[in-house]
Amino acid sequence: MTLAKAYAAASASAPLAPFQVERRAVGPHDIQIEIAYCGICHSDLHQVRDEWGGAKYPMVPGHEIVGRVTAVGAHVKGFQVGDLAGVGCLVDSCRTCPSCQRNFEQFCEKGAAFTYNGFEMDKKTPTYGGYSSSVVVDEAFTLKISPKLDLAAAAPLLCAGITTYAPLRRFKTKAGDKVGVVGLGGLGHMAVKIAAAMGAEVTMLSTSKAKEADARKLGAHHFGLTSEDLTFKKLAGQFDLIINTISAPHDYNKYLGLLRLEGAMVLLGVPPEPTPVAAGSLIFGHKVLTGSLIGGIKETQEMLDFCAEHGIVSEIELIPVQQVNEAYERMMKNDVRYRFVLDMKTL
Amino acid sequence: MTLAKAYAAASASAPLAPFQVERRAVGPHDIQIEIAYCGICHSDLHQVRDEWGGAKYPMVPGHEIVGRVTAVGAHVKGFQVGDLAGVGCLVDSCRTCPSCQRNFEQFCEKGAAFTYNGFEMDKKTPTYGGYSSSVVVDEAFTLKISPKLDLAAAAPLLCAGITTYAPLRRFKTKAGDKVGVVGLGGLGHMAVKIAAAMGAEVTMLSTSKAKEADARKLGAHHFGLTSEDLTFKKLAGQFDLIINTISAPHDYNKYLGLLRLEGAMVLLGVPPEPTPVAAGSLIFGHKVLTGSLIGGIKETQEMLDFCAEHGIVSEIELIPVQQVNEAYERMMKNDVRYRFVLDMKTL
Repeated sequence: MTLAKAYAAASASAPLAPFQVERRAVGPHDIQIEIAYCGICHSDLHQVRDEWGGAKYPMVPGHEIVGRVTAVGAHVKGFQVGDLAGVGCLVDSCRTCPSCQRNFEQFCEKGAAFTYNGFEMDKKTPTYGGYSSSVVVDEAFTLKISPKLDLAAAAPLLCAGITTYAPLRRFKTKAGDKVGVVGLGGLGHMAVKIAAAMGAEVTMLSTSKAKEADARKLGAHHFGLTSEDLTFKKLAGQFDLIINTISAPHDYNKYLGLLRLEGAMVLLGVPPEPTPVAAGSLIFGHKVLTGSLIGGIKETQEMLDFCAEHGIVSEIELIPVQQVNEAYERMMKNDVRYRFVLDMKTL
Repeated sequence: MTLAKAYAAASASAPLAPFQVERRAVGPHDIQIEIAYCGICHSDLHQVRDEWGGAKYPMVPGHEIVGRVTAVGAHVKGFQVGDLAGVGCLVDSCRTCPSCQRNFEQFCEKGAAFTYNGFEMDKKTPTYGGYSSSVVVDEAFTLKISPKLDLAAAAPLLCAGITTYAPLRRFKTKAGDKVGVVGLGGLGHMAVKIAAAMGAEVTMLSTSKAKEADARKLGAHHFGLTSEDLTFKKLAGQFDLIINTISAPHDYNKYLGLLRLEGAMVLLGVPPEPTPVAAGSLIFGHKVLTGSLIGGIKETQEMLDFCAEHGIVSEIELIPVQQVNEAYERMMKNDVRYRFVLDMKTL
């Protein structure tokens, strides 16, 4: 075992503060990573404040982890000391259930081991995340990061990247497809970049006209102002796919009206209350409403390779770890373009 | 032009009564059909009573029409006098828009010509349905009915059959798939028969234990009593596909929990109010919620051929046309197993 420096929350109301975590000895299939950067995901904030229930303290958040390999176990085949490596939302799963066999480890029937605020597969050893100087992870859950990418800006790919890449791939997004992205935040800005790199004709759908210039800079070809009803008339029946990143209450039915025959809207955000859906919004035009949750390990690697090939990283604001609590406050006000990343050498 | 005997509603509150309709002269692409039987669809009742708005009177309902060809136009290729023929929910469409080109005439962008309570494509000639002695329809919207099938019991295939066949095909139902059917009525009983014929393992999901024996007789392999919460626990994550025929208010989220990873629930019924959907019900397991509306002409013919091959018809109660108003009252009480069909020789 080694001791690693970290930032942790002691309770739902406590600010994050310096802490020490024990990292396990490097087992035969393990990789030890010196963490260089860790992105701040909105779910960090939700979990630190126990807004989803079941929070375990002390909690070391962070599941957008990138760094360099400092040790490998005897049976590790794919990594060497000195390699770049990443860790996303998952650090283990049963690997044998139907979900795992289909590379959907996030839906492991025995319950996946999430990177923090969870347990290892023994269901008793707590997991601690990436707001830390190092981490030890099984090779099977470690990702390769291309040295072509800016390492700090690549960190958010591990969650925001895969969360948006997976539904775009699931619906076979290809050149010429019309893709709408609802909401320009941490997820939305990645959806725009990735969809555009896939060759789609991308429309940013936002309530804020002020987002238009940024959206176009990120790769959006069109902009639809969703605070105006006329937008929903003008764009009716247009989209093959809508990636909906909004977790504030909003009317799904209006957006379903923007889909073409058999088009799909994928929910990534969870509004506080269930949203009323009119059966007719789905029946007329055979529209599809579905959701998506991060992605499996295989697809996460595929996404990282795709991003390396296309030079895609996140737009980030790099901050010292000591500013994490201030960053959380700014995230509450949507005051970040578009992802905070912690510089772990400040730890 | 010819005059045809019919039963029509003069207003939303009037009972159906004898009436005469003009049928157009048989054009070069037209087929004249002597109607033998016409099924009574629940939508007949909704439209006669103007429950969906926009009703046009006098209204001759009926879009589950079967009979025998009595005349064909000069350019008709596929039918001869004496052939059996059917007409479903559509009698024309623009035939050139993207929806029509994809064989989804029901979603014709210019508005399809529905069999009754609508207009021909000139948008001014009213359409009159199958509660009538004869009808004249373009060959392109006329279906072939196999003489192998009981003709009266085949009538409901034109609406109830295609409405359930289309989503089963869309989701590529095959041997061994687990299909749940919610609600055992006109649609539900066809869904059970067709899904079973496709080789699926079919579970009837119903609030009424009294439906179990019938469901099994129709081909269901299992029965889930949905008035008991335990059923939703026992069957969690089981189904590849759920065909939901219910139009009474009910909780979609509970049924979404019965789907496997990436499973789909298809709505065929329209509850009176939008139904609250929790994003999490769709996000966890990448569940799909969608809807389906009848089917295009090509697929309707495919369904009729499938039913002929597998000996599938509807379970019907054959009644004289004079009992149509009484039948409507019984349908309001779900007192029919499972479809009324009007015997037009009684007209």
